[in-house]
Amino acid sequence: MTRNLITVVVILSSVTLAFSQTPSRHNLPGKIYPQVNQDNSVTFTFYAPSANAVVLSLDRDYLMNKDENSLWMVTSDTQSEGFHYYSLKVGGLSFADPSVYTFYGCSRYSSAIEIPENEKDSNWYMPNKKVPHGAVRSLRFWSDVSNKYRRMYIYTPAEYDINTDKLYPVLYLLHGGGEDETGWPNQGRMDNIMDNLIAAGDAVPMIVVMDRGSATLADADPTEINRNLFDFTAYDRVVVEEVVPMIDYGYRTLADRNNRAIAGLSLGGFQSWSIGLLHKDLFAYIGDFSGSGMVASPENYNADLNNRVKLLYVSIGTEEPEHMYAGVKAFHDLLDNNGVKHVYYESPGTGHEWQTWLRSLNQFAALLFQ
Amino acid sequence: MTRNLITVVVILSSVTLAFSQTPSRHNLPGKIYPQVNQDNSVTFTFYAPSANAVVLSLDRDYLMNKDENSLWMVTSDTQSEGFHYYSLKVGGLSFADPSVYTFYGCSRYSSAIEIPENEKDSNWYMPNKKVPHGAVRSLRFWSDVSNKYRRMYIYTPAEYDINTDKLYPVLYLLHGGGEDETGWPNQGRMDNIMDNLIAAGDAVPMIVVMDRGSATLADADPTEINRNLFDFTAYDRVVVEEVVPMIDYGYRTLADRNNRAIAGLSLGGFQSWSIGLLHKDLFAYIGDFSGSGMVASPENYNADLNNRVKLLYVSIGTEEPEHMYAGVKAFHDLLDNNGVKHVYYESPGTGHEWQTWLRSLNQFAALLFQ
Repeated sequence: MTRNLITVVVILSSVTLAFSQTPSRHNLPGKIYPQVNQDNSVTFTFYAPSANAVVLSLDRDYLMNKDENSLWMVTSDTQSEGFHYYSLKVGGLSFADPSVYTFYGCSRYSSAIEIPENEKDSNWYMPNKKVPHGAVRSLRFWSDVSNKYRRMYIYTPAEYDINTDKLYPVLYLLHGGGEDETGWPNQGRMDNIMDNLIAAGDAVPMIVVMDRGSATLADADPTEINRNLFDFTAYDRVVVEEVVPMIDYGYRTLADRNNRAIAGLSLGGFQSWSIGLLHKDLFAYIGDFSGSGMVASPENYNADLNNRVKLLYVSIGTEEPEHMYAGVKAFHDLLDNNGVKHVYYESPGTGHEWQTWLRSLNQFAALLFQ
Repeated sequence: MTRNLITVVVILSSVTLAFSQTPSRHNLPGKIYPQVNQDNSVTFTFYAPSANAVVLSLDRDYLMNKDENSLWMVTSDTQSEGFHYYSLKVGGLSFADPSVYTFYGCSRYSSAIEIPENEKDSNWYMPNKKVPHGAVRSLRFWSDVSNKYRRMYIYTPAEYDINTDKLYPVLYLLHGGGEDETGWPNQGRMDNIMDNLIAAGDAVPMIVVMDRGSATLADADPTEINRNLFDFTAYDRVVVEEVVPMIDYGYRTLADRNNRAIAGLSLGGFQSWSIGLLHKDLFAYIGDFSGSGMVASPENYNADLNNRVKLLYVSIGTEEPEHMYAGVKAFHDLLDNNGVKHVYYESPGTGHEWQTWLRSLNQFAALLFQ
């Protein structure tokens, strides 16, 4: 009898586990779908009585199935860990799921789900009750270079408002193409990462500046924005003439190159190399997350860099598209062959996606200003 | 000859004016539609080759017209000044316009256009090059009351980081139903309003706290959020037990009732009365923008309030739905009849929309802590 009861309990527990579902972390309040399943597949629903077909577009397109109540539903394949954009498609239109928070990415507002890392040891990018929390400030500023207002976000560590005599080093952190200054604070969970690193003593308290990584010159045609993503001329001027001086004026910074880092993801990685190497008087640390690195001719990447820069950091996800992975790997090999000291990291199992960049920031920030 | 030339120039100028269009202020970079026309109508476009019909849903539904390039287009009726949500509808689905920034409102992400007030004298809610800019901070905090993380925004005036010995009064500013803590910093342009008021000497420098105006208790069913919008029990506890103490601990505040105000729009107006009157030890200023006011029986609104509260403020837009206008007007009359001193304001030509609330904040903030 006792043994039978135990068997029943064990079976019931297994059944519960097998069907365990959790609302995704980015659902709006009260929304239980999308749900992340035990095997890291995700179940989506969408109510659309008049639609003839509904497609969920995640890692691939999934045709949704309609039940008798006009609720469309589908379960995806197993997804990799981290944050993934998705959209819904009906009759050739693509739009955001009304059940979840949206994020500016892919040059539009996109829906997102998130597959938690192994829950037991993934608190490094989640808010943690036991650590003090820094603040992320939104700051408007007038740009004479662009002749318009711009906005940047600035992370100050929890102690910043208490230690009012202390000066801090600054990391300038750039987003990728099709994203904006909201990327790192929202998708990138950068405040959690910095809070946790600083509380553990694994990173020094620092200010993190997240500007919009694009700009046009004052006389530019307003419809011509973003036509040449890889022309950094205007944005370089915004950083050097406006953003860095404004931060050094308005915040308690250690205002020298040894206390300034620049890093970015994807397009922002290219920008970090370009701006970082052009202005060696400003930056002594450069980080490139999934950026394929090289923005000047190979001969610029020689052993002289070892004296000029205190840290070069390059990373890539193992599951990124082949041309991206191969590009970054080739750049890493070039640096090695040319005797350029650098830290190289491959994020296991992640693609050209935020989890690669969260992990990269977590590593890179711990190496700064030590 | 000279006269003819002048005539031609005058005619050409008139033509240019008649067809003058300006991209709406909330368009994504590089997007020229929606455009606000000279008569405050708005022209929208949407590219949807496979759609059979596209509807623009603004103040009413407009059927869009398709041109030979599958571009759907329509021009709306003249719109009132200020910020207006809109959406697109195809085949029974309603979604956000991919050409513009989205805003959390109406319990979803919505598109928006904005009709500028008469440009010559409407700089009061726009960023202004000539004034110092405060910062809006995003702060995560753990709520024991709710057993979850919450986020609030905190405006600190431009001088806050410079006058590090000075203490500041605090305005707690609440959003409306179907909105969240992003409403005032985004739709509400509150940082511009406060920056401009403070720079002109029309308001004292103050901290403004914008929390999410809803909460569930720790043991609540996660799917039961927002089922009873007018039950403020849980949120009252979050404000009194967590938010106010946290702000007084982490910021340089004047921590007494004479230096604390609470105000809100629509549902947030009801909350301000409820929380403000229940906790007279905490708040001496109460503001209600389009909230229809009364949350307790009429006999509570008597002349005793004149001794207890330093300012009561009530406002409504002249074009709000009749039941809202009548409700607030009746409340205003009740206060008058009961001898309760208060400031009453009608925003001319605006509805139950943000421009009413921007104007109300602009007035209310100038009356605080003087």
